[in-house]
Amino acid sequence: MTKTNFIAEPGKQEIVMTRVFDAPRELVFKACTDPNLIPQWWGPKYLTTTVDRMDVKQGGIWRFIHHDADGNKYAFHGVYHEIMSPERLIYTFEFEPVPGHVSLETATFEEHDGKTKLTDRSVFQTIEDRDGMLQSGMEEGAVETWDRLAELLEKMQKEQHED
Amino acid sequence: MTKTNFIAEPGKQEIVMTRVFDAPRELVFKACTDPNLIPQWWGPKYLTTTVDRMDVKQGGIWRFIHHDADGNKYAFHGVYHEIMSPERLIYTFEFEPVPGHVSLETATFEEHDGKTKLTDRSVFQTIEDRDGMLQSGMEEGAVETWDRLAELLEKMQKEQHED
Repeated sequence: MTKTNFIAEPGKQEIVMTRVFDAPRELVFKACTDPNLIPQWWGPKYLTTTVDRMDVKQGGIWRFIHHDADGNKYAFHGVYHEIMSPERLIYTFEFEPVPGHVSLETATFEEHDGKTKLTDRSVFQTIEDRDGMLQSGMEEGAVETWDRLAELLEKMQKEQHED
Repeated sequence: MTKTNFIAEPGKQEIVMTRVFDAPRELVFKACTDPNLIPQWWGPKYLTTTVDRMDVKQGGIWRFIHHDADGNKYAFHGVYHEIMSPERLIYTFEFEPVPGHVSLETATFEEHDGKTKLTDRSVFQTIEDRDGMLQSGMEEGAVETWDRLAELLEKMQKEQHED
């Protein structure tokens, strides 16, 4: 399994993650834009994720909720700036317990020889916001999330071949 | 008339503009969110600005068009992430001739003694995008735009007092 490359240079207000997934980009794009698939990979495994809203179109609102074992909820939301299937998604991202602190996410899907390089570029309003996100343990959660995405894509392809 | 403070530090992917306007923040906020007022100040004076779309709500789409004397058109668009009247606006921004290059804009309205400090923080996907915007003459256009906004606010207040 290929690994996630996580780059957060000191003094910058961005985080860039890349990974090559062993799946065609239509499938990777579908996993990122289908509300029925999000709960299967979005977030760390010890949390349950539900999709409250996910209207995948320009101006559409998305809102996902993490539920922990004690019944606590943590919500995230944003709006889609651009949906260019299956090449690019641009959207905003906010963790609701820290209101007004928003990042701009650009996900780019590039296919080579049946594999897909996914690049996710997050830019934050300030370096402090970016560093706060890093200190919250974001890298570990993001890497686990993409491991789960890779597992889901493998499963989806097996199911396709069995049809 | 107070002046616009325009900050674009080398090696960063942001531009921060601030200015104190001699008007209450409800009025400044209104000038930024009323489609009938946008054509009176948004952009440099030698261009005509029309509002194609402006749906001021979470997920709403805005699209403004600059028209030059030769009949050329240049459009800008984005989506609103947050409308917190009269304190804060967070939205995306794209200049259509350069598709896929998007910035995240945070406008903050703070009132002190009847005057309003407006802070506009633009963060770009990359330093190169930010520098490209600077090289396009963005500072001159932005400063002229805020001069026009100051003039409009002065006129709006005079009209209020005459009522």
